[in-house]
Amino acid sequence: MSEETSQENNISPFGLARSTVKEQPLTKEELDKYTRYFNATLYICLGMIYLKKDPLLRSPEGLTTSHLKSRLLGHFGSAPGQSFTYLHFNRLIKKLNLDAFFISGPGHGAPGIISHAYLEGSYTEAYPEVTQDSKGLQRLFHQFSFPGGMGSHATPEVPGSLHEGGELGYSISHAFGTVFDRPDLIALTMVGDGESETGPLATAWHGNKFLNPVTDGAVLPVLHLNGYKINNPTVLARVSHEELEMLFRGYGWTPYFVEGSDLDSMHQAMAATLERCVTEIKAYQKQARDSGKPFRPRWPMIVLRSPKGWTGPSEVGGHHLEGFWRAHQVPMTDVATSDEHLKQLEAWMRSYKPDELFDAEGRLVEDLRALAPEGDRRMSSNPVTNGGNPVKPLDLPKWQDYALQVDPGVTLESGMTNFAKWLRDVVAGNMTNFRLFGPDETESNKLGEVYKAGKKVWLADTIEYDEDGGNLSPTGRVMEMLSEHTVEGWLEGYILAGGHGLLNSYEPFIHIIDSMVGQHCKWIEKCNQVEWRKKISSLNILLTSTVWRQDHNGFTHQDPGFLDVLTNKSPEVVRIYLPPDGNTMLSTMDHCFKSKNYVNCIVYDKQPHLQFLNKEEAMTHCAKGLGIWEWASTYPDEEPDIVMCGIGDVVTAEALAATALLKENLPGIKIRFVNVVDLFRLVSHQDHPHGLTDKEFDSIFTRDKPVIVNFHSYPWLVHRLTYRRNGSRNIHVRGYREKGNIDTPLELAIKNKADRFSLAMEAIDQMPNLNNRASAVREKLRDEQIRAVAYSFENGIDVPHLKDWNWASRNAGIQQKGEAADKKPAPAGAEARSTGS
Amino acid sequence: MSEETSQENNISPFGLARSTVKEQPLTKEELDKYTRYFNATLYICLGMIYLKKDPLLRSPEGLTTSHLKSRLLGHFGSAPGQSFTYLHFNRLIKKLNLDAFFISGPGHGAPGIISHAYLEGSYTEAYPEVTQDSKGLQRLFHQFSFPGGMGSHATPEVPGSLHEGGELGYSISHAFGTVFDRPDLIALTMVGDGESETGPLATAWHGNKFLNPVTDGAVLPVLHLNGYKINNPTVLARVSHEELEMLFRGYGWTPYFVEGSDLDSMHQAMAATLERCVTEIKAYQKQARDSGKPFRPRWPMIVLRSPKGWTGPSEVGGHHLEGFWRAHQVPMTDVATSDEHLKQLEAWMRSYKPDELFDAEGRLVEDLRALAPEGDRRMSSNPVTNGGNPVKPLDLPKWQDYALQVDPGVTLESGMTNFAKWLRDVVAGNMTNFRLFGPDETESNKLGEVYKAGKKVWLADTIEYDEDGGNLSPTGRVMEMLSEHTVEGWLEGYILAGGHGLLNSYEPFIHIIDSMVGQHCKWIEKCNQVEWRKKISSLNILLTSTVWRQDHNGFTHQDPGFLDVLTNKSPEVVRIYLPPDGNTMLSTMDHCFKSKNYVNCIVYDKQPHLQFLNKEEAMTHCAKGLGIWEWASTYPDEEPDIVMCGIGDVVTAEALAATALLKENLPGIKIRFVNVVDLFRLVSHQDHPHGLTDKEFDSIFTRDKPVIVNFHSYPWLVHRLTYRRNGSRNIHVRGYREKGNIDTPLELAIKNKADRFSLAMEAIDQMPNLNNRASAVREKLRDEQIRAVAYSFENGIDVPHLKDWNWASRNAGIQQKGEAADKKPAPAGAEARSTGS
Repeated sequence: MSEETSQENNISPFGLARSTVKEQPLTKEELDKYTRYFNATLYICLGMIYLKKDPLLRSPEGLTTSHLKSRLLGHFGSAPGQSFTYLHFNRLIKKLNLDAFFISGPGHGAPGIISHAYLEGSYTEAYPEVTQDSKGLQRLFHQFSFPGGMGSHATPEVPGSLHEGGELGYSISHAFGTVFDRPDLIALTMVGDGESETGPLATAWHGNKFLNPVTDGAVLPVLHLNGYKINNPTVLARVSHEELEMLFRGYGWTPYFVEGSDLDSMHQAMAATLERCVTEIKAYQKQARDSGKPFRPRWPMIVLRSPKGWTGPSEVGGHHLEGFWRAHQVPMTDVATSDEHLKQLEAWMRSYKPDELFDAEGRLVEDLRALAPEGDRRMSSNPVTNGGNPVKPLDLPKWQDYALQVDPGVTLESGMTNFAKWLRDVVAGNMTNFRLFGPDETESNKLGEVYKAGKKVWLADTIEYDEDGGNLSPTGRVMEMLSEHTVEGWLEGYILAGGHGLLNSYEPFIHIIDSMVGQHCKWIEKCNQVEWRKKISSLNILLTSTVWRQDHNGFTHQDPGFLDVLTNKSPEVVRIYLPPDGNTMLSTMDHCFKSKNYVNCIVYDKQPHLQFLNKEEAMTHCAKGLGIWEWASTYPDEEPDIVMCGIGDVVTAEALAATALLKENLPGIKIRFVNVVDLFRLVSHQDHPHGLTDKEFDSIFTRDKPVIVNFHSYPWLVHRLTYRRNGSRNIHVRGYREKGNIDTPLELAIKNKADRFSLAMEAIDQMPNLNNRASAVREKLRDEQIRAVAYSFENGIDVPHLKDWNWASRNAGIQQKGEAADKKPAPAGAEARSTGS
Repeated sequence: MSEETSQENNISPFGLARSTVKEQPLTKEELDKYTRYFNATLYICLGMIYLKKDPLLRSPEGLTTSHLKSRLLGHFGSAPGQSFTYLHFNRLIKKLNLDAFFISGPGHGAPGIISHAYLEGSYTEAYPEVTQDSKGLQRLFHQFSFPGGMGSHATPEVPGSLHEGGELGYSISHAFGTVFDRPDLIALTMVGDGESETGPLATAWHGNKFLNPVTDGAVLPVLHLNGYKINNPTVLARVSHEELEMLFRGYGWTPYFVEGSDLDSMHQAMAATLERCVTEIKAYQKQARDSGKPFRPRWPMIVLRSPKGWTGPSEVGGHHLEGFWRAHQVPMTDVATSDEHLKQLEAWMRSYKPDELFDAEGRLVEDLRALAPEGDRRMSSNPVTNGGNPVKPLDLPKWQDYALQVDPGVTLESGMTNFAKWLRDVVAGNMTNFRLFGPDETESNKLGEVYKAGKKVWLADTIEYDEDGGNLSPTGRVMEMLSEHTVEGWLEGYILAGGHGLLNSYEPFIHIIDSMVGQHCKWIEKCNQVEWRKKISSLNILLTSTVWRQDHNGFTHQDPGFLDVLTNKSPEVVRIYLPPDGNTMLSTMDHCFKSKNYVNCIVYDKQPHLQFLNKEEAMTHCAKGLGIWEWASTYPDEEPDIVMCGIGDVVTAEALAATALLKENLPGIKIRFVNVVDLFRLVSHQDHPHGLTDKEFDSIFTRDKPVIVNFHSYPWLVHRLTYRRNGSRNIHVRGYREKGNIDTPLELAIKNKADRFSLAMEAIDQMPNLNNRASAVREKLRDEQIRAVAYSFENGIDVPHLKDWNWASRNAGIQQKGEAADKKPAPAGAEARSTGS
C-alpha cells in the first residue's frame, strides 16, 4: 500500500532486515559502534539478571557459581528490541536536537532501558553510589530485582520513566497525554505485542483523532512484534503482513516495518526508518503550523519484528530460546546447577566482548559514550518524565466569586451547573496546562458551559450538522472519547508531564478504571519515596450521575463502590470528598486543583438539589472536613440525645429532612446534625493524615449516643472506617445496597432505608427512652412514607427526590441559620411540645 | 478491496443505499411488508417512550397531553437500525431455518428489540398480561422505563436477551463466548459505534483468532454507524471509508457495507448483504467440517450506516434531529408543553400508519405476523439466551481421588499443581461444555497440566517452533488472550448460554474486570427475580499469584482488593472462598463447579505451601466453611485465652506457626485455632445466606477473648464483615496494606505484621494477664524475627516464605492431629513449662 511495500507474508523474526524504508544511512564505522553500544546494553541486561560479583567477568577463573545471584530474576525477552530502538533514536536526537523521551510499554524488559540510563549517566546522577565503573556496575546488578532495590519494570526509581508497565495496556494513552500541549515533544513509545492485545491499548490507537499537529507534540509508536507473551504467541505476531498493515492504516497510522535479526541490516533499517518517521512528523507539524490549519495526519508508526531474546543462544538444552517464549524471563534458569549451561551463559556474555566495551575501570569506552545525547536531551533525563520543569500551578479564579446565593434548605439549584461556570474560567485562564477529560458525558454531567472556553478536541472528519451545537474544534480543551481507559490514560500522562486536569465520569462506570487508578496510586506512593521525583498535580476524578439519581437507567448504573477501591490505597495518596451542596463542592474543587501527588475523588450529583451553605460557611466547613451544623441541630450547646449525620448530597438532604421531621414531631429531643465532606476524617489519625483523634471524634459523634449516618455509598465503608472508634457500636449506617429494580429516587431511598421517613423512624428506634408519644409518631411517619410513595407513583417517576413533596413545611422545622438556636433543651423524655421556632 | 467495492468516501448516512453487495432479492410486495413491519416496531418504540393511554391513537381527539406519560424516558436513537437488522435476519431465519439470536450491544435502544419480542409473541409468553391487543400494548408502553417495570436496556426481563448493554463494550466477547461449542448457532451482534470506542470492544474483534469453524458457531457483527454517542460524533463514523474497511480487514474480518436512509434500497441492500454473510459463514463451516481441517476464515461482518433516529423528523424546533445526536434519547422532550411539537409527534407516529399495521383488537395484522419465525426459531425465544436447553451439569471426577497425601504441617506441595490434575480430568470429561479461560497465565499459574486434556485454542498462524511445547491447537479447551476483558466476556457468554468454565488470573490484575464482574452480578441478581429465567452455571474466578508471593514483581502486582469489590454485590450472588491448603482447595472447586447462579471467587496461591488437612478433614471443614482446628489448638475443650485465626493460605500457615511459637514459649496458654474458608461465614446470617448467627459466631470466636486474625486481603474487610459481632472490638486483624517496596515474602509479611513473630507478639500484647515470662518471650520472638530477616537477606530473596527456616522445630510445637489434644489446661497465668509433646 506504500510505494515501498514489497514484503511477502513472513512472520519469522529471523534473517536479513525486511523493511519498508530502504535507505542505508549508516557508515561501516557507525555500524560497528552501534553494534558495540547495543552489546554494552545487552551485557548489562544479563549482568542485572545473573551477576552479583565480578561484573565484567574479569576474574581469572571465569564465570563461576559464586558470581551468580542466589535468585535469578528479571525479564530478558523484550530488552534487546527495546534497547535497539532506544539506541537508534539517540542518533536522531543528536542529529536533529530532538526533545524526546521513551515509554517502555512492556514494562518487563526494563533492563533494556535501565542499561541506557546507566550508560548515559542519568542513573548515576540519581544514585551517585552507582558509579561509572566496575563497582557501580556491580551495585547496579546487585540491586536489580533485589529487596529494597529496584523493580523489574520501569518503576519510579528509573530515571526517564513516567510509565511503569507493571499492568499492561496504557503506554499509548500515556504517551498521548504527555504530548498534549507540548508541541516539540516526541514520545517514543514501545508497545509490547502482548500489551497490544489488551482492550485499553487496542482502542488507544485512536488517540490520533484527538491530537492537534499545531499545538501538541507527537507520539511515535513502535509496536514490538517480539512474538510471545509469557507462554503464548501474540496475536499480532501471527497474522499476515497484509492484515497487520491494514489494521494500522485502519487505525489511521502509516506503518513502517522493520523485521529481521541480522544486525547490520537491522541497524540500517531502523536508523533509516526512525529518520523517515521523524522527518514525516516534523513535516506534518510544519505544514499545520505554517498554514495555521490543524489536520489529522496519518502519523507514522513502526512495526519492529525482532526475535524475543534477540542475540541470545538459539537453543538451550535442546529447546529453542532466541525467538521463542522461553526467552521471556530469565533465559537460562539452571546455570547454578548445570555446568554446561553456566558455560553457555559465560560464552553468551563474552560474545558481547565486554573487554572491548568497558575500560580498565569498568566505564563505557569513550567512543561509545559519544553516541548518547547529553543533559536534558537524554531520554533518561528529559524533564517531562519528572513532572515537567517545573509544574506550573494553575491560575485559579476565586471560587467565591462563583458561589451560589443560598436560602438554606430552600434554594434548589444544580451545584454542578454552577461549578461549570467556575470550571469554564479555570479552563479559560489556563489554556495550555489544563484540560477536562471525560467519556462523552461532559454535557450530560451538566458541565457543557466549559465549551465556551474550550470546545471538544476533534481532528476526525466533521459535517455541516456539527455547527448545530456540536462544539467540536481541533483546538479544544475538552477531551472526550467513549473509553474511560483512554481518557484516564490521557489525564495520567498529562499530569505526569506537569499539566493539570479533571476527569468527569458517571459514578457507576468509574469501576472500569479501578485498576488504572490503583496503579497510579502505587506510582505516586512510590514517587513519594524517591527523593529526586518532583511532585505533580493530583489526579482529580469527579463522579456524578450518582447512584441515588439513576432513575430510569436503573440497576446497571448503580455502583458507588469506587470509594471502597480507593480507600484500600495508600493514605499518603488518596483523598475522598463528598460535598453536600454547591458551595462546598466549589471549595472542594478549588482545594483539589491546588493539591499535589494525590488522587482526589469528588462525588457530587449533577441534578438540582437543595443548597445549604453560603460561601463563608462552605469554606469553613470544608477546611474542617466535617462539622456540626448547629443551625440544623436542636439545643446545639447540649449533649445530644442522638446524632444525625449525612455524608453525601442527596443523603444529607434526606438526613436533614429526617431531622426536621423529628424536630416537628418530637420537640424537645436534642438532635445534633453532622455533615462529613472529607471522608477520611472518620478514620483514626494513626491510619490517615486526615483522620481525627479519638478525642476529636468523640467530641462530634459522642462516645455513647446513637449516631444515624446516611451515607452516599455502600454503608459498610463507614463501619470499616470507624470500627475502632469508641462509639462504633452505636453507629447505624444507611447507604446503598444492591437490589435490582428500576426505582424512583424515593423508592430507591426507601428500599435502602435512606429516606427521611426511615431515618427518622430509625432514630426513634435508637432512643428507647423516648416518651410514649414516640410510637405514635413512628406510625405517623410510616403513614407519611406510604403517602409519599403513592404521590411518587401518581406523578410517574418524575419526582426530583421529593423536592416538592411537602419539603417547605418540613423545612420550617429546621432552625434558620440566621436565627439563634434554641438553647433550652427539654429533657429527652419530656412530653412533646411545639417548638414554635 | 472487495471486487464489489465502489463507495466513495462518504460519511453521510442519508440517501439511496450504498452497499458492497448489489443483489436485490426482495419483491415489491416483500418490500412493502418489510417497511410495514419496520413501521410497526418503530411505532411501538415511540409508544413505549411517549404513551400511557390510547396506544393506537384511536381516540377521536387525537394525541393529547393526557395520553402522554408524565415522564418521558427511553432512547430512540439506535432503535431503528437495530430493529431493521433484526427484521431482515428474521427473513433469513425463516428461509434457511437458522439457529440464531440477537445481541444488542448499544443496550439503550432496547425498544427496538422489545418491539420485536412483543410482535413475535415471546413477550406475551413471558408476561401473559401483556396481551396481543390494545390493552397489552398499553401495558407494554406503560411498564417501559417505569418503576417496577422494565428497564431501558435489554435487561434480563427482556425475552431473548443475554446481554444487557448497560455498561458498554462486551457485546462481541459475549457473542463469541456464546457460540463456542455450539456449531449451529449464529450470534447476530449489533455493535454500537459508541461502544466500539471502548477498549474491551476494540480488542474483542480479535476473537476470530480463537473460533474454530468446525466445532464453534459463528458471530455475525453488525457495526452500527449510528453516528453519535450521547453528545459527540463517534470516531468510526468520522473516518474515511477506506480506513474503516482497512481496520476491519486488519482485524481479520470481511466487511460488507450497507449505508443510507432510503427505505426501499436499504431493505434490498440489507436483505442481500445478510444473505451473503450467512452464505459465506455456512460455506466456511462446510469447508472446514467436510475437510476436518479447521482454519481461520476472514468471517464476514457488516457495517450499517443509518441515521440516528432514522425515520424521525429531520428537524425539530430549528434543530437537526434525524441523523444527529439530538435523536439519542427522547427525540422531542417538550411535547407536553409545546402544542406544535405535540402535533409534530402525532404526525410522526401516524406516519407509520398504525391503523394499517394493527387490527381492530390492536393485534399485528396477519400478513405481517407471518414474517416472523416461530417457536424457538424466534431470536426472542432462542433457548440459548436462557441458559441453554437445559444446562447440562458437569461430569466431575471425584476430587477425593486427587487429594494430596498430607503429613500435616510438613508436606510441602503446590496445591495448585495438584488441582491442575483434577482440572485436567474435568476438562477431559466435559469436552463440549467446559472451558478454561485466562489471560496468558495458565502455565504461570501452574495449571499447564490441563493441556494434556485440551490445548490452547489457536486459529492464527503457527510456526515450526510451536511444536516445542507450544500447546496450541484449533481444537483446544483453554482460551488465552492477553485481555482480561475478552476472556471474562467469553466466559460470561459461555455460561450464559449453558456452558461451564473457570477463569484463572493473577490476583492483582483481576481489578481490570471489576466492573464487568459487577455487571454480571447485577445480571444474575436480576435473573433471580425473573421467574422464567433458568439458573446457569456460576461464574468461577480463581485468583492466584497472590499478594504474599509477588516476590520480584513487586508493588504493581500486589492488590488483593477484588474481594472488597465483590463483597458489595448482592449476597444472593457472591461467594468468596479462601482455602488454606490443597485439599480444601479441591473440595472448594468441586463445590463451585456444581453451583448455579453465583459468582464464586476462589483465592489460592500457586506456590508450594505447607499442607494441613487430609481429604476427609478438608471435606468436613469446607462443608462448615470455617471451624476450630483442634489439632492446632491447645486445650481444645476449654474456653480459650486467645483465638488465633487464619483466612487464606500463606496467612494461615503463619498464624499456625505463631500458635506453635506461643505454645512452645508459653505453655499453658489456651489457644484456639480457627480457620475460615468461606468468608461470608463471618457476616451475620441476616446479611448473607452463609452468615453465622451471633450464637454460632460466639461459640467459635468467643464474645470477649482477643481474636488475632491473619487475613489474606486488606485487613479492614474483616472488620466490615464483623463490626456487628459481640466480640467485634476484640478482633485484631492483620492483612495487606499498601507500602511500596520490593520485598521478600518474609519482609512483606513483617511489614504488615502478618508474619508468625509479629502475630505471636500481638497475641502476647492482647493477653495482659500473662505471667511475667511473657515480656521475655516477646523479646525472644523479636530477636528471632530479626534473625529471620538476616537469614532471608543472606539467601537473597529466595526464601519460600520461611518454609525451611526452623519450621520443623516450630511444627513440633503443634499437636499432631492423630494425637489426643492435651486436655488439662494450666491456668492462663501459670508459670511457663515445656509441653514435651
